[in-house]
Amino acid sequence: MVIVMDRQATEEQIAAVTEKVHALGRKVHRSDGEGSIVLGVVGEGANLEPSDFLVMDGVNDAIRISSPFKLASRTFQREDTIVDVDGVKIGGDEVIVMAGPCSVESEEQIFACAEAVAKAGGRILRGGAYKPRTSPYSFQGLGVEGLKLLRAAGDKYGLKVVTEVMAIEQIDEISEWADMFQVGARNMQNFNLLRALGEHKDHKPVLLKRGIAATIQEWLMSAEYILAGGTKGVVLCERGIRSYDNQTRNILDLSAVPVIKKLSHLPIVADPSHGTGIRQYVADLARASVAVGADGLMVEVHNNPDKALSDGAQSLYPEQFDTLMKRCRVIATVLGRNIAPGKDDAA
Amino acid sequence: MVIVMDRQATEEQIAAVTEKVHALGRKVHRSDGEGSIVLGVVGEGANLEPSDFLVMDGVNDAIRISSPFKLASRTFQREDTIVDVDGVKIGGDEVIVMAGPCSVESEEQIFACAEAVAKAGGRILRGGAYKPRTSPYSFQGLGVEGLKLLRAAGDKYGLKVVTEVMAIEQIDEISEWADMFQVGARNMQNFNLLRALGEHKDHKPVLLKRGIAATIQEWLMSAEYILAGGTKGVVLCERGIRSYDNQTRNILDLSAVPVIKKLSHLPIVADPSHGTGIRQYVADLARASVAVGADGLMVEVHNNPDKALSDGAQSLYPEQFDTLMKRCRVIATVLGRNIAPGKDDAA
Amino acid sequence: MVIVMDRQATEEQIAAVTEKVHALGRKVHRSDGEGSIVLGVVGEGANLEPSDFLVMDGVNDAIRISSPFKLASRTFQREDTIVDVDGVKIGGDEVIVMAGPCSVESEEQIFACAEAVAKAGGRILRGGAYKPRTSPYSFQGLGVEGLKLLRAAGDKYGLKVVTEVMAIEQIDEISEWADMFQVGARNMQNFNLLRALGEHKDHKPVLLKRGIAATIQEWLMSAEYILAGGTKGVVLCERGIRSYDNQTRNILDLSAVPVIKKLSHLPIVADPSHGTGIRQYVADLARASVAVGADGLMVEVHNNPDKALSDGAQSLYPEQFDTLMKRCRVIATVLGRNIAPGKDDAA
Amino acid sequence: MVIVMDRQATEEQIAAVTEKVHALGRKVHRSDGEGSIVLGVVGEGANLEPSDFLVMDGVNDAIRISSPFKLASRTFQREDTIVDVDGVKIGGDEVIVMAGPCSVESEEQIFACAEAVAKAGGRILRGGAYKPRTSPYSFQGLGVEGLKLLRAAGDKYGLKVVTEVMAIEQIDEISEWADMFQVGARNMQNFNLLRALGEHKDHKPVLLKRGIAATIQEWLMSAEYILAGGTKGVVLCERGIRSYDNQTRNILDLSAVPVIKKLSHLPIVADPSHGTGIRQYVADLARASVAVGADGLMVEVHNNPDKALSDGAQSLYPEQFDTLMKRCRVIATVLGRNIAPGKDDAA
Repeated sequence: MVIVMDRQATEEQIAAVTEKVHALGRKVHRSDGEGSIVLGVVGEGANLEPSDFLVMDGVNDAIRISSPFKLASRTFQREDTIVDVDGVKIGGDEVIVMAGPCSVESEEQIFACAEAVAKAGGRILRGGAYKPRTSPYSFQGLGVEGLKLLRAAGDKYGLKVVTEVMAIEQIDEISEWADMFQVGARNMQNFNLLRALGEHKDHKPVLLKRGIAATIQEWLMSAEYILAGGTKGVVLCERGIRSYDNQTRNILDLSAVPVIKKLSHLPIVADPSHGTGIRQYVADLARASVAVGADGLMVEVHNNPDKALSDGAQSLYPEQFDTLMKRCRVIATVLGRNIAPGKDDAA
Repeated sequence: MVIVMDRQATEEQIAAVTEKVHALGRKVHRSDGEGSIVLGVVGEGANLEPSDFLVMDGVNDAIRISSPFKLASRTFQREDTIVDVDGVKIGGDEVIVMAGPCSVESEEQIFACAEAVAKAGGRILRGGAYKPRTSPYSFQGLGVEGLKLLRAAGDKYGLKVVTEVMAIEQIDEISEWADMFQVGARNMQNFNLLRALGEHKDHKPVLLKRGIAATIQEWLMSAEYILAGGTKGVVLCERGIRSYDNQTRNILDLSAVPVIKKLSHLPIVADPSHGTGIRQYVADLARASVAVGADGLMVEVHNNPDKALSDGAQSLYPEQFDTLMKRCRVIATVLGRNIAPGKDDAA
Repeated sequence: MVIVMDRQATEEQIAAVTEKVHALGRKVHRSDGEGSIVLGVVGEGANLEPSDFLVMDGVNDAIRISSPFKLASRTFQREDTIVDVDGVKIGGDEVIVMAGPCSVESEEQIFACAEAVAKAGGRILRGGAYKPRTSPYSFQGLGVEGLKLLRAAGDKYGLKVVTEVMAIEQIDEISEWADMFQVGARNMQNFNLLRALGEHKDHKPVLLKRGIAATIQEWLMSAEYILAGGTKGVVLCERGIRSYDNQTRNILDLSAVPVIKKLSHLPIVADPSHGTGIRQYVADLARASVAVGADGLMVEVHNNPDKALSDGAQSLYPEQFDTLMKRCRVIATVLGRNIAPGKDDAA
Repeated sequence: MVIVMDRQATEEQIAAVTEKVHALGRKVHRSDGEGSIVLGVVGEGANLEPSDFLVMDGVNDAIRISSPFKLASRTFQREDTIVDVDGVKIGGDEVIVMAGPCSVESEEQIFACAEAVAKAGGRILRGGAYKPRTSPYSFQGLGVEGLKLLRAAGDKYGLKVVTEVMAIEQIDEISEWADMFQVGARNMQNFNLLRALGEHKDHKPVLLKRGIAATIQEWLMSAEYILAGGTKGVVLCERGIRSYDNQTRNILDLSAVPVIKKLSHLPIVADPSHGTGIRQYVADLARASVAVGADGLMVEVHNNPDKALSDGAQSLYPEQFDTLMKRCRVIATVLGRNIAPGKDDAA
């Protein structure tokens, strides 16, 4: 931390700050000049809070210079983490596409979706069994029946399976049926849930969505909660942040992709379906996501979007998804990467 | 809902929309003119989703015209709800002040804080036993020991007690010791927690903080989750929203107070401590909160802020809190309201 | 400036940064520790740009520690500036109320408005002659005829006069008729206009509105442009910032008032009319503005809001304005300030 | 417009609203049902303001259903506008790249930049002669000398030329030397400037940057100001919007590209340099911009970024720009588009 004293700070004020730093087991390096006196705090020890110094007399500013996250930091681990979802590797050369409906609605529906996803080259099937709905009066998901259908559909079409966990009580059950947990944007700072996922005995990988107005640092701190529990496989998912305009449901922040790559070793995927909320724009932003360097996509695809029980308006038709995949495959090559071939892409 | 068709929409497209409305049990009133055709949807029934129509061909816009929340709505209940916290009434003529430290740290600390709060005219003691900390390496609270100390301190000084609940597993325990649950900003859309609080057998009142970037409608939808479970006592708490500037921790949105009063019958209080994050600004925004018409304040007060284990930088010294209370008392009278007298305010 | 090197930065990288600092006429103080090496830049000289160092190899962060504005800074001038608008003093004990219609529309209208403003205790009459309208098809103002009417109405009722300037070409003309220039939110960074106002021979005071998404630092930098030209009388006006919710037109950021008081010596007033955009909420936020410590208010009042050519929906009726003034007068006393009495407030 | 009455609105209140609509030359279609009464306003006429009805008794909501812009609207003109910049066509199959330094600094510098831009396949040279700087103490541009150098450099290397106009007084002069005007983000709502550009006798094309927190509708309204004056060639430029995070200077809103394509016939380009503010991220976002469907790019390139007088930290080295162009060329083909070949791309 660096503490900037006012240029009219008294020696007593400087001494008080210095004493507080010493009490916390650190040392102070003092530099006078440029219209202010700067106290550099040096030495190892517990985290210091800038705000604790900001309120002291004579202090103009207190600035943290080391990042508050450790396990998630690129400084801590230089090489990229590759997350293994039961054999499907996220963070390597292959751009992994996860797709499927918002909610599991019926056997017929989830099997039709899974077939479409597998046919176009998707690797992981998504689908909600427990749904976080803004309204208590909306469809809340099929629960464990949904989990079983999702698993069966994934198995039949050779896809891994990811689904959302909303509460600690659901962890054991979901771990039984799914290959990867998804933590939704609304639970990004549900710290009890994050800690329980990190410490769960199965240590299954977690897809951590960015909160609706989370800073990148807060997002990485949430990843830190999971990592601190022992689970190594955390994949970040950019899904759009809140803006002042209402032309799209959210603003997909694609600059988050290279920023995360700089600050962290964790893989990051993008979700253009929630990022825009409007079917017509999903493919455009999916291409942009691959072009910017995302390690994967999460896309909502439904065999019959007009009848979907949730998020129908942002779900792609299977044909649209297939076109999207073909185009993204070319874009991936520009970055020296690849996307798994579709079933009818001949050898 | 109102559906706006493109002026070049074909009769087939209009028919398709009309048919979909009929399939959902509603009727359509059609108005032609002003460069577009407007289809008004009439009749009672389940909620319609604008986005389901937005994606249909020929549709330019689909606009919800009735609010998605019911029990929380002023249309549903005209008269103000007054929430009873074991005898202390929030939402009436008295402006209720809740104050205390961020976290319960020790017996000595919480008793000293409680004494200061009671002396200045506060009615409810706040203090965290389970803390939502951004970093897994920060102090996480004393747990049940903290709850017991909070209760004892409140009882000794004649204060009611409010504390944060972070997980379903904590509800029974907190209900045993506290008079009111607090749901933090990070959990405003932790729907499982909200539902469990609403359905809990004790039906104790809930202080629901606004999420960091929650719209007022989303906030009221979260209140709806609690109300739908049977708990009637929901108090909203404006605690600052995220902005693009970093001069303060958040922006306290005081316009939320009259907006909530218009849309809902629920009481609303303001938290200038989290709203600014900086001690020096807390009293200014506390006065403004009372002036704008808030039903109460939540303020962080600590007997020794410089040694606080959390949020010290935004906690007031007891003397500052006392001055704040004296000034707010005068402002309250402008609105025909009152704040309980301090212990040394002679008869 | 403080430059934070990566803990794995090489000595060559540190030398390159040091050399660049020396080339700019400054010196470097180096502190090793806490997992990083900190280079403090000391000595006087031209402004350094953090971004110029951020891109150098081995640099993790570069942080400006002195404020980029000088003349507007509290460090530069400790005592409050009191702006003299032809005898009316803004920034002292009296809270100054500026009120009037959005636009000057006719002789009858502006005289009726001026009478209502004066009667209730307002000191400065506002009214637009040149209007910044989002649509080219909306009413654009009466121009110089409007200025003359505004002046005449102000003179008749003993009010000073403020009006918006939108272009350099209008400065001479407006200076002839008005006592104070207003720069609108949309022109807060129209630097050519700011410079021309600062350098204008009459050096009339300027009311500088905050841009719709301006940081407080950017706002003060815009004030700096005016001050740098020689005009000393700059009054800042908080008028609401953009948010993600649409319940109000903007969010009035009342924390800006104490923040400005800390960073700058310039007076600051608040505009609850644009801050909310809805008549029903204006009085609530006006009271809050006085309570938070604003040096004045700017309020839209119209003798017949339902017929107003612009902003009718946020304009107060004269009776509403009168009630607002009476209530704010009491609140001002809490802060040891006063508001001029209304005409029928007996001695 | 659609006006939603409260379900408890009286017939008198409904009559008052109806009368006001009639007074404005429109008719009302009434639909009763769904807990509210909806009044559809039909007929042609002047723009109605929702806020004028919102304040009437018994009115719950008033919603504009036709867009407030006309000439810029896709409804007004179905086919894409192709803007001709002295022979270079923006909005067709070719993705047009505009590049060059932030400011023109010297003959040597601008010729070196122009050479690099032309060599890599750029078509238009950018460079500021008049600079909008946040600080009055920063480099403000070379003025007319800069314009002449820019023109000469463009001519030598076969590039068209675009430069920023900040004030009405500069229009004639810039029109003499440049092929296209640029309006910066800070002047997006400087309506006097927009009107003057639209009405200028040369009717040269205008590149209109999006304001830092402008909605897409406000942006199109600003385009409308220019179009209303008779200038047909308006190109929109997405350059990043303000967000709450500070990891990048702005958030490049790439969803704006398909949204503009839907709402308007005007071409849109993206500026990843200002969109991120950090050199390291520019190429990533440039690729994403082409992938999402932008009609062009604006990129800052400098022959010696470390010595640049402004924006050096976000300017690319010529080699980086060349690599970016090669990669974008492949991505463009995915969309059936092309980018002009570089000089050393053999036949």
